[in-house]
Amino acid sequence: MADFITKKETDYSQWYLDIVLKAELADYSPIKGSMVIRPRGYAIWESMQSHLDTLFKDTGHQNAYFPLLIPEAFIAKEAEHVEGFSPELAVVTHAGGAPLETPYVIRPTSETIIWSMYKKWIQSYRDLPLLINQWANVVRWEKRTRLFLRTSEFLWQEGHTAHESKQEAVEETLRILDIYRRFLEDYLAIPVQQGRKTKLEKFAGAVDTYCVEALMQDGKALQMGTSHFLGQNFAKAFDVRFQTRQKELEYVWATSWGVSTRMIGGLIMTHSDNKGLVVPPRVAPTQVVIVPIVNSENKREVLTEAHKLYDQLSPHYRTVLDDDDTSSPGFKFSEWELRGSCLRIELGPRDIAKASAMLVRRDSGVKTSVPLIHLSKEIQTHLDSMHHDMYHKAKTFVDQHTHRAHSYDEFKQLCAQPISGYIIADWDGSDTVETQIKEDTMATVRVVNSIDPHDTKKPARCIVSGRPATARGIFAKSY
Amino acid sequence: MADFITKKETDYSQWYLDIVLKAELADYSPIKGSMVIRPRGYAIWESMQSHLDTLFKDTGHQNAYFPLLIPEAFIAKEAEHVEGFSPELAVVTHAGGAPLETPYVIRPTSETIIWSMYKKWIQSYRDLPLLINQWANVVRWEKRTRLFLRTSEFLWQEGHTAHESKQEAVEETLRILDIYRRFLEDYLAIPVQQGRKTKLEKFAGAVDTYCVEALMQDGKALQMGTSHFLGQNFAKAFDVRFQTRQKELEYVWATSWGVSTRMIGGLIMTHSDNKGLVVPPRVAPTQVVIVPIVNSENKREVLTEAHKLYDQLSPHYRTVLDDDDTSSPGFKFSEWELRGSCLRIELGPRDIAKASAMLVRRDSGVKTSVPLIHLSKEIQTHLDSMHHDMYHKAKTFVDQHTHRAHSYDEFKQLCAQPISGYIIADWDGSDTVETQIKEDTMATVRVVNSIDPHDTKKPARCIVSGRPATARGIFAKSY
Repeated sequence: MADFITKKETDYSQWYLDIVLKAELADYSPIKGSMVIRPRGYAIWESMQSHLDTLFKDTGHQNAYFPLLIPEAFIAKEAEHVEGFSPELAVVTHAGGAPLETPYVIRPTSETIIWSMYKKWIQSYRDLPLLINQWANVVRWEKRTRLFLRTSEFLWQEGHTAHESKQEAVEETLRILDIYRRFLEDYLAIPVQQGRKTKLEKFAGAVDTYCVEALMQDGKALQMGTSHFLGQNFAKAFDVRFQTRQKELEYVWATSWGVSTRMIGGLIMTHSDNKGLVVPPRVAPTQVVIVPIVNSENKREVLTEAHKLYDQLSPHYRTVLDDDDTSSPGFKFSEWELRGSCLRIELGPRDIAKASAMLVRRDSGVKTSVPLIHLSKEIQTHLDSMHHDMYHKAKTFVDQHTHRAHSYDEFKQLCAQPISGYIIADWDGSDTVETQIKEDTMATVRVVNSIDPHDTKKPARCIVSGRPATARGIFAKSY
Repeated sequence: MADFITKKETDYSQWYLDIVLKAELADYSPIKGSMVIRPRGYAIWESMQSHLDTLFKDTGHQNAYFPLLIPEAFIAKEAEHVEGFSPELAVVTHAGGAPLETPYVIRPTSETIIWSMYKKWIQSYRDLPLLINQWANVVRWEKRTRLFLRTSEFLWQEGHTAHESKQEAVEETLRILDIYRRFLEDYLAIPVQQGRKTKLEKFAGAVDTYCVEALMQDGKALQMGTSHFLGQNFAKAFDVRFQTRQKELEYVWATSWGVSTRMIGGLIMTHSDNKGLVVPPRVAPTQVVIVPIVNSENKREVLTEAHKLYDQLSPHYRTVLDDDDTSSPGFKFSEWELRGSCLRIELGPRDIAKASAMLVRRDSGVKTSVPLIHLSKEIQTHLDSMHHDMYHKAKTFVDQHTHRAHSYDEFKQLCAQPISGYIIADWDGSDTVETQIKEDTMATVRVVNSIDPHDTKKPARCIVSGRPATARGIFAKSY
């Protein structure tokens, strides 16, 4: 695998695609805009699923499965929802050899089909809260696609919860946002910005959309997950009312939330380098690769030791022994750097003579000779350090690429930087200014936070209109 | 939940549907022929997935994900495949607001899309074997559907492997068949018949289809899983050749295999009774339910003990504490019998005074008073016994409903029994006889096995044609 990876400084997009394709994470498919997730990529998704599923279940959520196909008329029941999703729908018009009486759309998201079922299942406050999650594929027909980041079909989880009060639903929305943040930081080593979306950027059908955003190495933001407070919008669209504790009829309060295989793209772009993929240890499919250093004389002895080591480590770590005898150690080093094994253990005759092995970290390249008797314990220490170092490296990058703009000129100058990053600016909260900034600079509001009145001596002003500012936005160019 | 369940002796079909709907395993959806899998049903599927996934990975298989949509032309590339699947296809003709240039079908199975990718990935014997599995949804437009057993959309796993020799592919086909048999017996407590399908019953595109079949309590067989030896059919259809060790170009050998959410239907119909669902302990979402027996005087004391017990058991068993104070113990007993909790623990003031609890088995109804200090260990013993007893009860049922037919008259008499079961008969292996038997009796060949020449003194004869028999079939009416 002397496969060439484009340098990220030369062509960031091509660098990303080279890693995805050459590390065999995903491949293009014959279907426009759809990808194939290959075993090395899918293993990262399985690892993400497993951790997230535990976090959801620990907070009382249960999994279920709803149909892939949705009657076209359902989508139209919520006014904003149909406007947002219509342009992206794939439509089934024929089935079983005949035209369908009413067409079905492939789910772009499942609020409508799920709320049509909730109408059957929810009668009383005793049926609430209903906390359901679904792991599924969805289809949104996209014009411009990119492996993992934007594809016409993707895999995700979508939570859909029903509550008896507004407060409880808002709390759920924020609880999930916090789960996403913790997951991204604690498992993917990705620092995030969290906050609310503007009206122009929110989910079609939500009252409020909250999200977690991450900053990629090219200074663009990537939305990693969203959590929506839906108010009573879908309950009204599907007439889902319940008997309250006061024996009155009220519409149910709702949330929905999701993360997708897009996170794999975010993980690659946050951590990888010009040698290839770097994966945080807690979700890495290969945490340890053992590379025996052999020649014809010592081959048997070294391989015996390497197999012993494999047997010792594999119950504790996701371990591979690369004993392929048709390629050189140097070739294997490059190959496993490309594939993103967290640690490499080199084991040769000199190491064996010293009862030690050479341990090499993927993120830093640092080599440490470790006595074999301490190796298993040392590996855990190195994996933990690697997670923390990766997080802090990413956090430092974000801090270095986050700037405050006090005027629109300053804002535009920051946007013109090669790695523009996050730009924090106060604005009057109007759609007009938001749209103007987007048109002028390509930057959008990633999240909105409220203005801390202690943060500034004079009242905040909109950098564009000069009117009193009502919101502090984190702006960025984005994927 | 005084919900009425139809007795299975009165109306077997309705008994089955009552359990599925009233135990909240699944529900009808607004989409013709598609079901919603509710949390109690989905939890069984998750448990099945988890065990099967381990069995697949332990034998070297990796998971991946291929597109939902397949270009319509792909299906036509394998002649038998298109003939078999065309009548069941759902077709996407519009997407992104415009008609598609070439329509896509929703995957009914993924051989074609996967082999179109294998063409890119396989060049040499070094790329083989390729052992890939996919967990996915598929759509086959069905005219007559029944929850879990036959639905237009279902969830399944589909394995697709590529090999350098015929022998290796045949071995893989049979290895998987054996994994299915072990899974059904060791986890679902379902005894199975395994063997080959006839030409008329095999998968469209396979050289040989092997399957595992189970006998339901109404005497009908249910196909629980299939494993196909595909020969070089799909390699030829997609022109997938590899360089052999002898540096020649040869078509790749293939297998595919799958089990689906249909197994949940088979599990229900094999084990359940007139009180509701009975689930084998190794896949049961609820292994233990604790029901406190309280009145107003002792409520606090009993609930305290019940919570202690829950804390003690829940790390080891999938445990629920039903402390809802709006329904009576008797009501809860019925409810958890309907829902299929394996064991019920009744804990009242008299039990607490004796430092014991009453343990009740779902399958047999047998009650045992167990000292609290032994309870956790006893539960494991009871769950293990329950698994074995359920398996043997089902096995006895199969044995009692398996008959040998020595003549066609005898065959027809057996078919006319209320619970006809398996009928073993020799036949000449011809399509004509197989078709005649099906038309006369509704019975089909579930599996074919070869005839043991030591089994009979005179040469075997076809029960219909009188010609020399070439095969021994296990016939049954089926779902």
